[in-house]
Amino acid sequence: MESGFISIGQYLIERLYELGIRHIFGVPGDFVLGFYDLLVNSKIKVINMCDEQRAGFAADAYARVNGVGAVCVTYCVGGLKIANPTAGAFAEKSPLIVISGSPGIRERRKDPLLHHKVRDFDTQLRVFNHVTISSTVLDDPQTAAKEIDRVLDSSLQHKRPVYIEIPRDMVSQPLYLDKSRINGKESFSDPEKEKDNSTVLNEALMEVISIIKSSKKLAILAGVELHRYGLQDKLVSIVEKFQIPVASTLSSKSVISEIHPLYLGLYEGAMGHDNVRDYVESSDCLILLGAFVTDLDLGGLPSKIDPANSISITSEKVSIKYHNFEGIRLEDFIRGMADSNEIGGPRRVTNLPYTQKSIQFSAIKGKKITINRLFQCLDSFLKNNMIVLADVGDALFGSTDLVIHNKTEFLSSAYYASMGFAVPASIGAQFANPKLRPLVIVGDGAFQMTGMEISTSYRFNLNPIVLVLDNQGYGTERSILDGHFNDIPMWDYSKILKLIGGGIGYLIETEEQFEDSLLQAERNKESFSILDIRLDRYDKSTALQRLTDSLRKSAI
Amino acid sequence: MESGFISIGQYLIERLYELGIRHIFGVPGDFVLGFYDLLVNSKIKVINMCDEQRAGFAADAYARVNGVGAVCVTYCVGGLKIANPTAGAFAEKSPLIVISGSPGIRERRKDPLLHHKVRDFDTQLRVFNHVTISSTVLDDPQTAAKEIDRVLDSSLQHKRPVYIEIPRDMVSQPLYLDKSRINGKESFSDPEKEKDNSTVLNEALMEVISIIKSSKKLAILAGVELHRYGLQDKLVSIVEKFQIPVASTLSSKSVISEIHPLYLGLYEGAMGHDNVRDYVESSDCLILLGAFVTDLDLGGLPSKIDPANSISITSEKVSIKYHNFEGIRLEDFIRGMADSNEIGGPRRVTNLPYTQKSIQFSAIKGKKITINRLFQCLDSFLKNNMIVLADVGDALFGSTDLVIHNKTEFLSSAYYASMGFAVPASIGAQFANPKLRPLVIVGDGAFQMTGMEISTSYRFNLNPIVLVLDNQGYGTERSILDGHFNDIPMWDYSKILKLIGGGIGYLIETEEQFEDSLLQAERNKESFSILDIRLDRYDKSTALQRLTDSLRKSAI
Repeated sequence: MESGFISIGQYLIERLYELGIRHIFGVPGDFVLGFYDLLVNSKIKVINMCDEQRAGFAADAYARVNGVGAVCVTYCVGGLKIANPTAGAFAEKSPLIVISGSPGIRERRKDPLLHHKVRDFDTQLRVFNHVTISSTVLDDPQTAAKEIDRVLDSSLQHKRPVYIEIPRDMVSQPLYLDKSRINGKESFSDPEKEKDNSTVLNEALMEVISIIKSSKKLAILAGVELHRYGLQDKLVSIVEKFQIPVASTLSSKSVISEIHPLYLGLYEGAMGHDNVRDYVESSDCLILLGAFVTDLDLGGLPSKIDPANSISITSEKVSIKYHNFEGIRLEDFIRGMADSNEIGGPRRVTNLPYTQKSIQFSAIKGKKITINRLFQCLDSFLKNNMIVLADVGDALFGSTDLVIHNKTEFLSSAYYASMGFAVPASIGAQFANPKLRPLVIVGDGAFQMTGMEISTSYRFNLNPIVLVLDNQGYGTERSILDGHFNDIPMWDYSKILKLIGGGIGYLIETEEQFEDSLLQAERNKESFSILDIRLDRYDKSTALQRLTDSLRKSAI
Repeated sequence: MESGFISIGQYLIERLYELGIRHIFGVPGDFVLGFYDLLVNSKIKVINMCDEQRAGFAADAYARVNGVGAVCVTYCVGGLKIANPTAGAFAEKSPLIVISGSPGIRERRKDPLLHHKVRDFDTQLRVFNHVTISSTVLDDPQTAAKEIDRVLDSSLQHKRPVYIEIPRDMVSQPLYLDKSRINGKESFSDPEKEKDNSTVLNEALMEVISIIKSSKKLAILAGVELHRYGLQDKLVSIVEKFQIPVASTLSSKSVISEIHPLYLGLYEGAMGHDNVRDYVESSDCLILLGAFVTDLDLGGLPSKIDPANSISITSEKVSIKYHNFEGIRLEDFIRGMADSNEIGGPRRVTNLPYTQKSIQFSAIKGKKITINRLFQCLDSFLKNNMIVLADVGDALFGSTDLVIHNKTEFLSSAYYASMGFAVPASIGAQFANPKLRPLVIVGDGAFQMTGMEISTSYRFNLNPIVLVLDNQGYGTERSILDGHFNDIPMWDYSKILKLIGGGIGYLIETEEQFEDSLLQAERNKESFSILDIRLDRYDKSTALQRLTDSLRKSAI
């Protein structure tokens, strides 16, 4: 970034680019047109979506794969449509930058009834204060640069969404950059504080390593923060150096290769396998790394994790048994463990309860496809270059037994559980890493919410393979409490190409059709492929069966 | 309602029914399943939609036509999706009841990581506090009935949305109704206060009538509140009794029949006709009835309404020239004027500048259809039983010159201007009044946001006629600041039936095709009809031309 005067809008774009943002998702509107004009003339590519909510999901997925992502919308009629995906990014710790245009500061004087206004001019800001970690309105050229830096920093530090509002008359206002900020952002570090932190870090590290040495049956529960902070390689080092078996959660699935010899499987309460759960819960030293154990992880069962035998390290705090350390950064602790020379030779771990293995699938001719067989087939089919995006419902639960290979990624709204995430998310994921081929698994209910965004995949020559689990209803809810309200209208999903003008569609009823279409879809690199998989209304995966048995008990 | 114990859920349903709600729109989810189960077994019909946002738009439209409407969704992943339609209902004064399920009170103890949770259990409540007029969480059987009454009352009184959250373990909790509440709601009126109010009302009424008597050139600007408070007939009485010419605004279009002899036309700044604007602004006594003059009403022009010559009566206050009265209810004042005996014989009004007349349209064979000709054709075509629903953009602006007949209604997100309103709104409108045939005018950009909800029209045998103004982009924005970001992918809208399984589609390129298809669509009473009207990319209505010329000046 060069010295001297640049505009507020330009500075924001420069900072986004520095952070690694190469694509920005959104829908234009009159209060943000000036900023859009700057964007399309910048090094960042604008990905126009059909709808704001779906742009939010795409940007969230982009953030998860790329490390940071951004969505840009207009005031209120755009912004409030992404309250939900922003909340999802908050719940799931995704560093999503929300940028919204708004009425100019000059226009706001006398509080006129400008279109898109709700109650006050700051209604949208107030709403976003509840679903972001920090926010700013760039209403002052004197402070705009500092505000942009502050808010972007907090997004990266906490891996949470933030909100930046640009009144439209501020976009081209010049701001002055002093020299300290010219080469990237200012350093906020305080040497005194850094030294204190390293003392605390060392004490905590020593204690953890001493506990590891004296324990007999260790286990790691590897959580979603390892993914968000890019610490997957360090996790492998820790697992291998200390020879500690490792389980993951539904939210963190794929944080470590599921064919790693020390991988236990998914720890997921009622939904998971008993032997994985037993192994984890009977450990005399369970190390939770960046893991938050949610109700879905427990699948409706009470947590049997005993704090007296647990160590938990997250970005929020480090807890050993019943005492806590504060001010330790997650990445420092994980790196400290991975790089430690404290431990002697590795102990040998034997008798792992369960190592997931891919099953070799072969279609039975003429046999009607079922959910369980579908996932078995997928398990043989998955390729290293694929990213699996599972929407909410059996698309997610059934996926839990998929074996995610070394370089495959798995993405889902696994905790926030917002239906409609997967199709738009596949767009963000593929832009973030064009080498990844998205495999989208989505229920018909979720597809009816956001699936038309496949039009954007077609527009930008993306090639996701979309599997619609078509059981004409909300299958998970049917299992909890059934009623006509769980039925949805039947669509002929494979005909979607007639409407949007391209892509390839398949109607699937048998195992053989599924296997064949999947292979054909893989060969079609030019466009999306959509498979409408007709399932029995009450078919469900064994994982969902176990989960809903448990959830039904807590539902009224 | 009978005496004794009923559950919180049942009481809420009873109260909704008492208010006139016969249909409720929504999407189920696990935190609201128990309440859904009560609903489907009640006298209220549940209208399942494909998506929550669109359910919100449908319920808003239902509220506008029926007097009150409701939407019911699950926690956060459902609720936050309707932040935008709720904000729209707030901005446009629509009494929309938002009902959301949420985690049970018992589940919340110890603050667990329950799925769908964002920051705290009250995140959703806090968000809705900014976009509703009042809100409640029904967490206490002792106060639940009173809370329900309070919140519903405030929605009806202010014609604004409200938020009611039911933790799922409260749905079947019994509440005790004391006798005073058994026959409908308690009376909150205070006789002492009523008396004071009637004194104030009389003083204000006398003053207004005296000004009317002494003025030479009167005009009424009839606003959206007359529609919301159901005062259309009283407006006609006032207009006829005092012989005052009347204009309406974009938000209130159709509040009076546009073929009434005293109707002036739409007052809409740069977008409107000069002679209507001149007449209104040069009046020596302009009476604004329930009118809020927004920036779109002014079309980018500064308001030339002179307070010294104005009387404004809204639900918020009564202003005469530079002094205000408080505590006067809009409906009391309007009724007071309509029923007044003060005035003598009517004065004769002559030389009205402009009375809208329907133009007899006849298609020119082989001529490519344009926006202006399309609206001219519609003007001849409109029937008394139709409700016109105009989405944002030229669908709305072009509609301004449509002549809305006596019993036709006109509905739009004319002030909040949220794209994607019209298709889902047509569902709410038709359920609210099945005698109305919806005529939906929607741009292709808006259709790509929410148009798939036509699947719900098909599901419930509704028969809207949907006109897609297909110019492959955001036409209004193109006029303000053009760029590739205003282009959208081309869909073959008339093929939508292939995907959703029914309906009739037409591809329109010429005037003749348009006229023919419109007549065929009218005859098809069995299902929706969709007309994909291919327009030139830069075609626009004369009204939009005038508006964007003006908006462009204020855009940066």
